[in-house]
Amino acid sequence: MNGAESLVETLLTNGIDTCFANPGTSEMHFVAALDRNREMRCVLGLFEGVVTGAADGYYRMRERPAATLLHLGPGLGNGIANLHNAKKAQSGILNIVGEHVTTHLGFDPPLAADIAGLARPVSAWVRTATDAASIAALTVEAIDATFGPPPAIATLILPGDTAWGAAEGKAAVARSSAQPRQRVTGDIIDKAARLLRSGEPTLLILGGPALKGAALDRAGEIAGRTGCRIATQFFSARLERGAGRVPLERIPYAVDQALTMLKPFRHIVTVCTEEPIAFFAYPGKPSQLKPKGCDVLTLCTMADDCGEALADLAAAVGATEMDRPVQAASEKLRPSGALNAANLAQALLATIPEGCILVDESVTTGRESFGVTAGAAPHDNIQNMGGSIGFGTPLSTGAAIACPDRPVLCVVGDGSAMYTIQSLWTQVRESLNVTTIVCANRSYQILKNEFKAVGAGVPGSNALSMLEIDNPTLDFVALAKGMGMGATRVARAEDLCRAIERGLAEPGPTLIEAQL
Amino acid sequence: MNGAESLVETLLTNGIDTCFANPGTSEMHFVAALDRNREMRCVLGLFEGVVTGAADGYYRMRERPAATLLHLGPGLGNGIANLHNAKKAQSGILNIVGEHVTTHLGFDPPLAADIAGLARPVSAWVRTATDAASIAALTVEAIDATFGPPPAIATLILPGDTAWGAAEGKAAVARSSAQPRQRVTGDIIDKAARLLRSGEPTLLILGGPALKGAALDRAGEIAGRTGCRIATQFFSARLERGAGRVPLERIPYAVDQALTMLKPFRHIVTVCTEEPIAFFAYPGKPSQLKPKGCDVLTLCTMADDCGEALADLAAAVGATEMDRPVQAASEKLRPSGALNAANLAQALLATIPEGCILVDESVTTGRESFGVTAGAAPHDNIQNMGGSIGFGTPLSTGAAIACPDRPVLCVVGDGSAMYTIQSLWTQVRESLNVTTIVCANRSYQILKNEFKAVGAGVPGSNALSMLEIDNPTLDFVALAKGMGMGATRVARAEDLCRAIERGLAEPGPTLIEAQL
Repeated sequence: MNGAESLVETLLTNGIDTCFANPGTSEMHFVAALDRNREMRCVLGLFEGVVTGAADGYYRMRERPAATLLHLGPGLGNGIANLHNAKKAQSGILNIVGEHVTTHLGFDPPLAADIAGLARPVSAWVRTATDAASIAALTVEAIDATFGPPPAIATLILPGDTAWGAAEGKAAVARSSAQPRQRVTGDIIDKAARLLRSGEPTLLILGGPALKGAALDRAGEIAGRTGCRIATQFFSARLERGAGRVPLERIPYAVDQALTMLKPFRHIVTVCTEEPIAFFAYPGKPSQLKPKGCDVLTLCTMADDCGEALADLAAAVGATEMDRPVQAASEKLRPSGALNAANLAQALLATIPEGCILVDESVTTGRESFGVTAGAAPHDNIQNMGGSIGFGTPLSTGAAIACPDRPVLCVVGDGSAMYTIQSLWTQVRESLNVTTIVCANRSYQILKNEFKAVGAGVPGSNALSMLEIDNPTLDFVALAKGMGMGATRVARAEDLCRAIERGLAEPGPTLIEAQL
Repeated sequence: MNGAESLVETLLTNGIDTCFANPGTSEMHFVAALDRNREMRCVLGLFEGVVTGAADGYYRMRERPAATLLHLGPGLGNGIANLHNAKKAQSGILNIVGEHVTTHLGFDPPLAADIAGLARPVSAWVRTATDAASIAALTVEAIDATFGPPPAIATLILPGDTAWGAAEGKAAVARSSAQPRQRVTGDIIDKAARLLRSGEPTLLILGGPALKGAALDRAGEIAGRTGCRIATQFFSARLERGAGRVPLERIPYAVDQALTMLKPFRHIVTVCTEEPIAFFAYPGKPSQLKPKGCDVLTLCTMADDCGEALADLAAAVGATEMDRPVQAASEKLRPSGALNAANLAQALLATIPEGCILVDESVTTGRESFGVTAGAAPHDNIQNMGGSIGFGTPLSTGAAIACPDRPVLCVVGDGSAMYTIQSLWTQVRESLNVTTIVCANRSYQILKNEFKAVGAGVPGSNALSMLEIDNPTLDFVALAKGMGMGATRVARAEDLCRAIERGLAEPGPTLIEAQL
């Protein structure tokens, strides 16, 4: 058994059976090891931003890390933006980055780069293998790091000689002993319970795993019982919502609106998130969105078991299932007329199927849809935690790999879609059930708003040339065709509804260019 | 004048009048400053790999740095692979990377990242602006760093408040005092001259600026006079070649072939390059390609003036213009028949126009073309120095911006083309005279070869799934159409010739999918 085989077997032994990859020469022994370990599903991306974004999407839905296989420093570099997004979502990912043979590095060959230096800003754990025999142990260390708590990104750098060198028998496979999340102390539960019972205006802000399943139910019951309000940040890693689920408010993106929403509160209690902060700073506006005099209590962090903490808190305030607020189903009227942000939202409400995974990178267009879809069929909503665009189509790819039985709907701005458009090819190759709606407004619309918000005045022609992407016009139907994907273009809301339904009904991926 | 305006004016004052950009909120004041400084040409890329690769292409042809404008850590991250390639080519580039307002960073907002940490592996100089008033001085420091010597990448990180804060009058614009390249000492010239006159087998290896103009002529004369041989590395940043130019050998990529070529030599003299090293290491093969007992003399590095050094050396060995070898023009027979690597090379020979900039990322397909095109019309050949694919189409974009009066021919593998396919959009937007030939062999062909070369055996079906990109088939004509570019597909050599000629003759960019 060589080092690469030892690595692949250790991954499989520890339940990591999916690898998003774009390998190069230095990873050829890993690729060869796949022939002898067919349980490892390897998914090829034509660009590493697809690879790392897909690993993030996989984690968010599967709650188990995937591996990525990346080619040296530049391959990792191409994946950094979506690793940044994954880091901010606290997704567990195990990057395996090939490296030159150790003795070769001293000669500074063309592909030599500071891989560890590039990895550190996005990784909680970075190590370079020194020999084939110790790869299994090092791999387990990396797997443990991905579990945390809190979950995180680990980057294992694999010099060629450690991949092709011999690793010995039994020692070559080892088992992760990942720690469970920590239990929140009774003191903190008591403090939160007292505060919630005080009757003073309190906002419970949920993030991470508190946004789904039993944890979310308990949070709803606490709110129903104590009268506190419950909200998410503007962006959430994964949120279970829709009819029958606990309804949550959302802290607005725009600073002034966020300040207005938060103004009444005397207390904020955070669960797997931090106090609300502005996405960007603006001249004369605060970074911290909480009102003056509002205190913040951390009920639990991502390192803690939020399910237990919320159950304990629910018990402490005497909340029961009877207290749980439930989102009513909205009437699904099929919209018509020329497409705009408002009827696009209505079209989503009408068509989101039960169990859908909705990946939202719709930026400006989609801001209006979130409220409208609160009463849609129950679904998961996945958002961008790191703010780096080019996230939606790779995330959808990974989410579809993680959940082959669930439909994926990706709503993405045209500017964002172009960042990692190569995702479409992987979706076709893997026959994934993804329907991508590109909101084609032909501009970096958010920047037109931000230009004003940062006090830069009114953009002139030279500035506008940086904000508009209508010259030339992007033809997403042709782009999809170029990657073997069927696609359609719609300009009216009724056509969008039909196109979404057709996309979801037909096997395999499809793309809809929604002209706004 | 605010900090952003001070920055833009300082750039213009120092001759940096081109900015490849993909801005975000934190760069909006820089964008606003463009309205007041219309001499700055801003070129939008839909992905940062296009932006940084274009800046590299611009430098290689213009020998003057361009600026890039990148959005925070992830924007820089997306540009890292082509910055790596630029670093290895020793291209000067000035990155301007937006950053959160300093006080905002402490709250760890979504886009916060270790920008300096990401920049360091690809930059010789990294600094963060602390206030608007000192931006001009800092910008000059950055510009100086791009000039070197040797030329290099400088990354200036620009927090939002330093961009929108007030910068005072005169101090706001400053002038670079970049140092000229150093003069090589007489001792080294004498040593090289003695060695070349000894009659022992000697190889002069040229890189960087020694591969063009007077420096290349002098090198040719030295070889003609002394009987030494002259070669390039396998990859060169920019090489003037073709009929009438000094012919150069090329050290092969494959280790065994390189060892065979280099075996006869007792001495190697390097000019703006290093001793030859294998691209990758392979089991049982050396990293150093020079034969045992061969010594290496560094005539000059990229920090030195190679033009002067080669003139001095030519004088020392008594070489004159009469000694210069000249490449004969090859007969331009138009090939026909089903396309393959050999007749693709013939098609290039037949169609390369005088003054053409040929950007070569053809990987396996193109290896056979280099020798064949030695006697083509005189042209510049640009290659990938860093080994990170996705280099060709962005480089072509920047080269065309730098040299609007010269035709650009980009020969690129299908796998490479998909990395930064967004380049096509910028080429259309800027009406650039670029003809892109995609060599569509539907596989990472180089990896099939490398799989064997690293001793991984014969790839099985699972391994092959990582090496073949034919499922689904990429349709580059549709991809080009998706970005507003006319394109054609050819499968025969005679059709390729016609398509290249048409592409070069018509204004604006075009793409040819060459089916192999």
